[in-house]
Amino acid sequence: MPHTQPDHSSAWAAGSPLGLHRVVEPAGVLPQAAWRLDSRPEIWPDEVRIRVQRLNLDAASFRQLHEASDGDADKIRHAVLEIVASRGKMQNPVTGSGGMLTGVVEEAGPDSPLGLRAGDRIATLVSLSLTPLVITDELARWDGRSEQVPCDGHAILFGRSIAARLPDDMPAELALSVMDVCGAPALTHRIVTASAVARPVVAIIGAAGKSGSLSAAAARQAGAAAIVGVVPHEAEAETLRAAKSADGVRGLVDEVVIADARDPVGVSAAVTKAGGPADVTVVCVDVPGCEGGAILSTAQGGTVIFFSMATSFTAAALGAEGVAADVTMLVGNGYVPGHAQLALDLIRSEPGVRGIFQSRIDHSE
Amino acid sequence: MPHTQPDHSSAWAAGSPLGLHRVVEPAGVLPQAAWRLDSRPEIWPDEVRIRVQRLNLDAASFRQLHEASDGDADKIRHAVLEIVASRGKMQNPVTGSGGMLTGVVEEAGPDSPLGLRAGDRIATLVSLSLTPLVITDELARWDGRSEQVPCDGHAILFGRSIAARLPDDMPAELALSVMDVCGAPALTHRIVTASAVARPVVAIIGAAGKSGSLSAAAARQAGAAAIVGVVPHEAEAETLRAAKSADGVRGLVDEVVIADARDPVGVSAAVTKAGGPADVTVVCVDVPGCEGGAILSTAQGGTVIFFSMATSFTAAALGAEGVAADVTMLVGNGYVPGHAQLALDLIRSEPGVRGIFQSRIDHSE
Repeated sequence: MPHTQPDHSSAWAAGSPLGLHRVVEPAGVLPQAAWRLDSRPEIWPDEVRIRVQRLNLDAASFRQLHEASDGDADKIRHAVLEIVASRGKMQNPVTGSGGMLTGVVEEAGPDSPLGLRAGDRIATLVSLSLTPLVITDELARWDGRSEQVPCDGHAILFGRSIAARLPDDMPAELALSVMDVCGAPALTHRIVTASAVARPVVAIIGAAGKSGSLSAAAARQAGAAAIVGVVPHEAEAETLRAAKSADGVRGLVDEVVIADARDPVGVSAAVTKAGGPADVTVVCVDVPGCEGGAILSTAQGGTVIFFSMATSFTAAALGAEGVAADVTMLVGNGYVPGHAQLALDLIRSEPGVRGIFQSRIDHSE
Repeated sequence: MPHTQPDHSSAWAAGSPLGLHRVVEPAGVLPQAAWRLDSRPEIWPDEVRIRVQRLNLDAASFRQLHEASDGDADKIRHAVLEIVASRGKMQNPVTGSGGMLTGVVEEAGPDSPLGLRAGDRIATLVSLSLTPLVITDELARWDGRSEQVPCDGHAILFGRSIAARLPDDMPAELALSVMDVCGAPALTHRIVTASAVARPVVAIIGAAGKSGSLSAAAARQAGAAAIVGVVPHEAEAETLRAAKSADGVRGLVDEVVIADARDPVGVSAAVTKAGGPADVTVVCVDVPGCEGGAILSTAQGGTVIFFSMATSFTAAALGAEGVAADVTMLVGNGYVPGHAQLALDLIRSEPGVRGIFQSRIDHSE
């Protein structure tokens, strides 16, 4: 039934790019806030239907389900099936979180802006917590022991959903790991490119991690004069020193400094000694209390980009005011157009970054 | 003993603009995080000493002290004196918060960058929680019933402290009320001026409040094409409609819309109908849950400035990603150079804004 528009009384019946027409209850909220979505397979003209191959449950959600099921495979399968059947999406009612999925495009509506075609292998970069989903295989192939869930069924993407084609030239696991953090290098690239300073000094706090190493490579590509990588201890410093830039000569970063990101005086003194203060500081470590150090490591007139979900809004706002820091502070938006492509291209061209990702994948097995 | 530099073994002995040389314990932290500061009256070359006239305790701190003292004036006086004597600053150990002070400049060091001279009447715009303070009058004139504390003593400003001269042409209470929120109009002015769109549409969520009305006036001055003011109910809508622009003809805002800022679909539909989506959206309401509405009210490529301390960092970051919103999201930094002057000038030139402030002051008496 291609492009059938089901009868729908809402004012959004023409198909909202946000998926408002799929919200069943409560009426008028966004799909993420909805208790229940309409997950029927017929698509609106700007939607895309995916044949699902695998769900990647959010870590917090999987942990909660695993514990509530006492590790019993039948119980956890039943729990997930029950959620998806009743809500029309995989949003854990306890944690509120979802995850992502991979699959193959089955049908793309004529008005879809996502640029996908039937047969494309894709990963969704919007949360399962807002994605209409139907499971048809009872999750028979899932042993319940990992957040990786082999699955057959269908899912719906809206006009403003985000999906990326899985590349043919690298393993899916590596590609997914890159896409998971692809907002950071894209926004770093944009801010370094737009910097008021022609060739800015960039500090990356947490430079040996996934989002940090990608952001360092993006800063280099965008014309950074010097890149200072901050890491918490010698082991990560060695990893970072060993990572070379695409030219095989320079390092992924120019200076590696070891400092506790939660110590404002310590980290700012270390960054300043290594060539700072920075014109652009990128925070990529998921520990609380890094706001002050990032602010003090940044020159007056500079910019701090916070990518850590442990960032405290008030600590950033009051911290800057408390030291009269005229710095622009950005909430790290995970969406920048073209972000997945930019990050995958960096993995292809930067062996140092690829090495960091590969080693993390190897060690998690 | 002018400009005497006390013996000090720290590397910062030359006098740190952040006041690190005044930190007694624990060593190496910022003054705000310190348990105890050195509050001696002798100033370093870049410091300023203030003769204190009044402390304005932070509302949360006053409430805690008032409750812990059972409303007894002697007890609450004793509690404040005890904190200041032991810590060298007025930072409530329970709430962590401070407040601000007013006073007269007694001595300005030769290297102070603050532009103050002996005899200037000033208000500090950095928190008491990081300001060295000594009280010498036992707070004898304070009845303990208000957060306004008449006080004699001295306080120290560092090189990177922020202070503003109290103007002669308006009551101190009005000036302080303006300075309290002066970061919002200053940053709004900067962002509207720098907008990629030549004459941007600006939405102010909470436009009838103090920071909202000032931000609306600042947006107008910075060249906004149209200003949409969002308010929660008809009473505030009437206030806003009655507020005229400096020319006495236009309104302070061009369109007034009533919407619940916590309802993303409702507020974005209202802003869009009134001339949006906005190129710049300014969030000035201190209620949680306004992130999604602000993001959806903003055009792709636009900017959201969050001034509300109730903003959730993760709600903003994940909210934008969930709807594929390519918007720049700023943490509202309370410090922008020249912010107090800009806000006071707006109060002088904009009778509509002054009326909103005056009515709030009258109603709080």
